[in-house]
Amino acid sequence: MTYDLVIIGTGAAGLSAAIYAERYKLNTLLIGEEFGGETATAGAIENWPGNKIIDGYELMAAMKEQALAAGAEIREGRVIRVKKKDACFDVFTEKESVHAKAVILAIGAQRRHLNLPNEKELTGKGVHYCVTCDGPVYAKKTVAMVGGGDSSVKGVNFLAEYAEKIYLITREKEPHAEPVNMERMKAHGEKVEILAETQVKEIVGEKKLESLVLSRSYRGEERLAVDGLFVEIGFDPDKTFADQLGLELDERGYLKADNMMRTNVPGVFPAGDAVNHFEGFKQDITAAALGAVAATSAYDYVRKNGSRCEFHASA
Amino acid sequence: MTYDLVIIGTGAAGLSAAIYAERYKLNTLLIGEEFGGETATAGAIENWPGNKIIDGYELMAAMKEQALAAGAEIREGRVIRVKKKDACFDVFTEKESVHAKAVILAIGAQRRHLNLPNEKELTGKGVHYCVTCDGPVYAKKTVAMVGGGDSSVKGVNFLAEYAEKIYLITREKEPHAEPVNMERMKAHGEKVEILAETQVKEIVGEKKLESLVLSRSYRGEERLAVDGLFVEIGFDPDKTFADQLGLELDERGYLKADNMMRTNVPGVFPAGDAVNHFEGFKQDITAAALGAVAATSAYDYVRKNGSRCEFHASA
Repeated sequence: MTYDLVIIGTGAAGLSAAIYAERYKLNTLLIGEEFGGETATAGAIENWPGNKIIDGYELMAAMKEQALAAGAEIREGRVIRVKKKDACFDVFTEKESVHAKAVILAIGAQRRHLNLPNEKELTGKGVHYCVTCDGPVYAKKTVAMVGGGDSSVKGVNFLAEYAEKIYLITREKEPHAEPVNMERMKAHGEKVEILAETQVKEIVGEKKLESLVLSRSYRGEERLAVDGLFVEIGFDPDKTFADQLGLELDERGYLKADNMMRTNVPGVFPAGDAVNHFEGFKQDITAAALGAVAATSAYDYVRKNGSRCEFHASA
Repeated sequence: MTYDLVIIGTGAAGLSAAIYAERYKLNTLLIGEEFGGETATAGAIENWPGNKIIDGYELMAAMKEQALAAGAEIREGRVIRVKKKDACFDVFTEKESVHAKAVILAIGAQRRHLNLPNEKELTGKGVHYCVTCDGPVYAKKTVAMVGGGDSSVKGVNFLAEYAEKIYLITREKEPHAEPVNMERMKAHGEKVEILAETQVKEIVGEKKLESLVLSRSYRGEERLAVDGLFVEIGFDPDKTFADQLGLELDERGYLKADNMMRTNVPGVFPAGDAVNHFEGFKQDITAAALGAVAATSAYDYVRKNGSRCEFHASA
């Protein structure tokens, strides 16, 4: 069986791409490992235009239902390999392989985690990875930011507009960020406190985050009570498919694409957080938009080149 | 009163920008002439991710409610002039003027209409301006396309995947489009019929489109029964503010912006259909995403430069 399009990734970008692909009448298979991607575990979302507040999982479930109703096929699975053969692609999961005329890589970018027990359980319940998404919730509260690079300092500055107290926890002797961001952080005075050469050893909380255990005591205490914890220690874009397909990466390691999500490999289109199209601004709304764009380019590609794949494909 | 941000335009881009701007705590005024922009009159929308089907007006009303709840101020009005003075902007409507530190131009692009009686009344009820949005509804139906350029021929090819019969009505002796698109159109055979040197004189229908009256009779009849009419005779981006502010335009006459919606004039950010970011692919989801991006850049700009405007502003 040869699909017109295989979309890898079932987050906002992949689901939006599937909705559009089906409107273009592309015979589409969506394969994903973690349904809903990052959004599904983001908790309450207040910046999805059109919904004052919606649970991330619900939003993803609604997109999935819409994609299914439009005719998309959705399978759970981990894609381990994509191989280009003439004008066709072979997409391998751990259990099977399918043919495709075009491929959309909506594989996201893994935010680096602390990899501590309790971290996953409390994600969205005090533990967060996106200040612009979740910062405003902590008005007049005490929060900690783990980081040390520019993103974390910018994150602290963002949080300072809401939170009452912010601890910036860094392994280094001091944070390193653009001067303008460092200056701004200093301007917050005592509101921001830097805990240098310190790591989070433990995340404590039952139903929600209650406190952190630090590697180095602060004011004589290893335990630091906080309402929120933000982790900004970078992203790891997945390079697996880039290596397999010979895709070019940008200077930050993201898949390189033009405005229409075309790559250097005809027939391969990334979408969502797998690309860095908006300079690190990564939201559900941008992911969904880029998914729609990638589907449009895939449609254009399949209309022009799809028959070359049918000719070659034997299965 | 000096606003941090004035957003001109109350369509999907402007409303989404307002939602994001308020999350950034920018003191934001949204001024628009036609609430909901093109979307509000688009009828049922099936490609807004997360809603299997939603009325365009309802979607815009939901975004408006969300922007208001977030703290945005929304006023109805026609902005006739934007003037930059040092680091501030003066925004003039027909009745008043306000100060702003930054401006988002979510002014859309006027699709050219036929300017016939009944056209506005039947928009979304048989009369459409976007094949990708509304084409699939006409499966096995008879439709007409008014145009003659590349967009209209591509539109016909798109419609041919759904409709049973398509009339391409053009004032010219023949349509002019990219060879590949012309070839594809010819490949549809009798399904597509070209009515050359013909204009639509009248749009007939009570509650929905029923037929067209042509300037030149077809098979002895001036009246042509159709289920749908698509108009693809180009866009007219509004150059008023570009002229007033000295904004650069791209080769198609749209406001020129980088990926972050920054223009050659610091503090001015376009969004939505006013830019041509995705090569003519203009959807609610892309407009909303670009609105969010423009708000993010405006926030960044105001944080760095806003105080310079406060210093100058006397009102």
